[in-house]
Amino acid sequence: MEKAISGRIYDIVEIVGASTKGWEEAVKNAVDTASRELTNVRIAEVAKLDTLLVEGEIMEYRARVKLSFKHEIEPETL
Amino acid sequence: MEKAISGRIYDIVEIVGASTKGWEEAVKNAVDTASRELTNVRIAEVAKLDTLLVEGEIMEYRARVKLSFKHEIEPETL
Amino acid sequence: MEKAISGRIYDIVEIVGASTKGWEEAVKNAVDTASRELTNVRIAEVAKLDTLLVEGEIMEYRARVKLSFKHEIEPETL
Amino acid sequence: MEKAISGRIYDIVEIVGASTKGWEEAVKNAVDTASRELTNVRIAEVAKLDTLLVEGEIMEYRARVKLSFKHEIEPETL
Amino acid sequence: MEKAISGRIYDIVEIVGASTKGWEEAVKNAVDTASRELTNVRIAEVAKLDTLLVEGEIMEYRARVKLSFKHEIEPETL
Amino acid sequence: MEKAISGRIYDIVEIVGASTKGWEEAVKNAVDTASRELTNVRIAEVAKLDTLLVEGEIMEYRARVKLSFKHEIEPETL
Amino acid sequence: MEKAISGRIYDIVEIVGASTKGWEEAVKNAVDTASRELTNVRIAEVAKLDTLLVEGEIMEYRARVKLSFKHEIEPETL
Amino acid sequence: MEKAISGRIYDIVEIVGASTKGWEEAVKNAVDTASRELTNVRIAEVAKLDTLLVEGEIMEYRARVKLSFKHEIEPETL
Amino acid sequence: MEKAISGRIYDIVEIVGASTKGWEEAVKNAVDTASRELTNVRIAEVAKLDTLLVEGEIMEYRARVKLSFKHEIEPETL
Amino acid sequence: MEKAISGRIYDIVEIVGASTKGWEEAVKNAVDTASRELTNVRIAEVAKLDTLLVEGEIMEYRARVKLSFKHEIEPETL
Amino acid sequence: MEKAISGRIYDIVEIVGASTKGWEEAVKNAVDTASRELTNVRIAEVAKLDTLLVEGEIMEYRARVKLSFKHEIEPETL
Amino acid sequence: MEKAISGRIYDIVEIVGASTKGWEEAVKNAVDTASRELTNVRIAEVAKLDTLLVEGEIMEYRARVKLSFKHEIEPETL
Repeated sequence: MEKAISGRIYDIVEIVGASTKGWEEAVKNAVDTASRELTNVRIAEVAKLDTLLVEGEIMEYRARVKLSFKHEIEPETL
Repeated sequence: MEKAISGRIYDIVEIVGASTKGWEEAVKNAVDTASRELTNVRIAEVAKLDTLLVEGEIMEYRARVKLSFKHEIEPETL
Repeated sequence: MEKAISGRIYDIVEIVGASTKGWEEAVKNAVDTASRELTNVRIAEVAKLDTLLVEGEIMEYRARVKLSFKHEIEPETL
Repeated sequence: MEKAISGRIYDIVEIVGASTKGWEEAVKNAVDTASRELTNVRIAEVAKLDTLLVEGEIMEYRARVKLSFKHEIEPETL
Repeated sequence: MEKAISGRIYDIVEIVGASTKGWEEAVKNAVDTASRELTNVRIAEVAKLDTLLVEGEIMEYRARVKLSFKHEIEPETL
Repeated sequence: MEKAISGRIYDIVEIVGASTKGWEEAVKNAVDTASRELTNVRIAEVAKLDTLLVEGEIMEYRARVKLSFKHEIEPETL
Repeated sequence: MEKAISGRIYDIVEIVGASTKGWEEAVKNAVDTASRELTNVRIAEVAKLDTLLVEGEIMEYRARVKLSFKHEIEPETL
Repeated sequence: MEKAISGRIYDIVEIVGASTKGWEEAVKNAVDTASRELTNVRIAEVAKLDTLLVEGEIMEYRARVKLSFKHEIEPETL
Repeated sequence: MEKAISGRIYDIVEIVGASTKGWEEAVKNAVDTASRELTNVRIAEVAKLDTLLVEGEIMEYRARVKLSFKHEIEPETL
Repeated sequence: MEKAISGRIYDIVEIVGASTKGWEEAVKNAVDTASRELTNVRIAEVAKLDTLLVEGEIMEYRARVKLSFKHEIEPETL
Repeated sequence: MEKAISGRIYDIVEIVGASTKGWEEAVKNAVDTASRELTNVRIAEVAKLDTLLVEGEIMEYRARVKLSFKHEIEPETL
Repeated sequence: MEKAISGRIYDIVEIVGASTKGWEEAVKNAVDTASRELTNVRIAEVAKLDTLLVEGEIMEYRARVKLSFKHEIEPETL
């Protein structure tokens, strides 16, 4: 499949991070976890924010984010 | 009305909380107020975030949330 | 549950008003009915407008609105 | 507050029903529970459907519905 | 990359299941297939429902769902 | 108007079906009725699901669907 | 095609009405026009409202509505 | 039914056009086909764009559009 | 920057008008105010309708509209 | 153009603020910048939240907000 | 008003471009026109695509876009 | 986990393609890249279109698409 490909390609994945402190840290946790497996994450778009409660107390802030990162093309397919 | 009812039922109410510090505390204030009258609140979903200003300064951060909590069935109706 | 609560809290309820004249009066009817039980209603946001017909003639204009009003905290809980 | 009110008024509440069999029964369970406290429920609009899983098996089907029902005006306020 | 990560992380994938019987089974088929490769699937949110027809007859009910499941952290990266 | 037209054309109509049993049959009823007048219906997309109630009991499940079907070009215009 | 069909079927059409006076009359005009060709129109849902201007003056109020009406089944196909 | 009707009325239909070249031509094909049966089409609003693939190659670009056109009132009903 | 520019260009601004009488007049007020500074406003699309209340009485109807108007190109830049 | 204008008018502008600390400060930065040129900003509605990353680290939190502020009518036009 | 402002600020404006050839050129025309007055436009997000027709023929392709560009801070206010 | 699975399963991934020429080629580039790793891609739905600019000139057209493709079941799990 010898195709000439122009233009930059980005993949998008959806992930939910959580934190007891707030949504900024929830996104940071999601990004840190994702960055172990993905490189070149450039933007995290917030898709949903909510809060989990236990017995009337906030247990964790959760942020659902869409991460976009540069598509990794395997060397052997180039 | 003798019906056998299976499955858990949750009610959802919409409430707006406010805070001078940020949206996390705005949600906490909404939840604390609601928890005086509702028990078993489990999730607060953010529906809208905004900020109220007075003379160019932020006066309060406001969060509109949907709270879901376990439906309380009155003993006498069981 | 001795919590210090800061910030103003608003509740939101959804209600459908109707009128034979138009949507402005439909909202007025919804608000008038709600004001018998709620105090301090401050805003009615239109969520949906429609019209009910019978035999090709418009029977009533209906407006679904979200009413926001100041949360009433019972004296004994303060 | 002696106001002449024309037009029919409906209230809308949001509720989540669940069932091990399917979404039709989940809605039926939500409606049956609500009907213990509300009369004249006329429509249940589906706002969201999901499924809860435990260890890879579906545990319950859940339906979030908006119930509209005729506003009950207390006799003493008329 | 020695980061301390707090909070639970969930991944979300989108998948379309189909069934000749109905949407509940369509979701079940999607979940069963996904569970061969993913563990700890906890929720399947319905994003879209449709029906495929051939010559005026319903051939299959299809459900597009978003599955959320616990992020698996590889032991070597911990 | 002698135009050369390439590409397949589909029309989309919106229809509401109902059933006492469930939404799958509601869609089937909508499709069966539409198939008396339309040929080559290929997909029915669910746009809205609701339930009609009478005196606290579910009377019918209703599904609003968008049907897409092959555009019939009249022979004389070809 | 001898199928037994249960449940009521409604068709939905989209139409834009206009008026120099306001949106209520715009909907009335749309409904009156549609009622010449359709019978049993029961609901007109507002999908969009706008206003057309000429030289800074409002020329007409326009309402885009979805009309739902009882599906007419031709006698010969029953 | 002798009603005086003021204001211009437009009908809206939904149609999917396709092309091997691109979405502009897909819309043109949809419009050309519709113009055989409808007159006075004035606007085609894009509701959805997608692409159909076969074996990894793009087979056709498809555009779902909403066409609005002047409502034709039959002379005999005037 | 000597570019040949083809096609008509429109700008869009968002504005909120208010009136004690109704939404039609609220839009008219918004348009009248905008027309003092903008020329060639052609369409006002309704983005949101709400109603402001004081002590249970409607104080004003508000309409948020998007105005589109012909882009004014300064003579010196042509 | 001597028109009597009743009702308060608000303009709405869209702006993106950024901060290395969090979304509350991002909104504050957007508001502070806008307040240099606009007076009477009263509300900042959050339209979108995201996070910009560089090499797996969060570089800035960004908030897209809609600011509404009192329309300034130039004295000479009154 | 001596405030220290951190973070980059972007303004967003909405504009409609048109072209007889296609939507890419419609966006290019909108951007070229805007660039005469704005500098540092960085992204044009498509909000809506449509096509204007005259007598069954496509007259122009129109693209409504949101342009984001770096907020220009006047030197004297720094 | 010996389950009998009926019905076809599709996975959906989100990807952003870019091109200096237009959105059709941007989608083609996204699809070509994805096809190196995925087989049986059947549909690319457009989720978002935008344009990246540098110094007032369009640098690339970008299309965010959702690709659906046949779920590959590993032989050993059958």
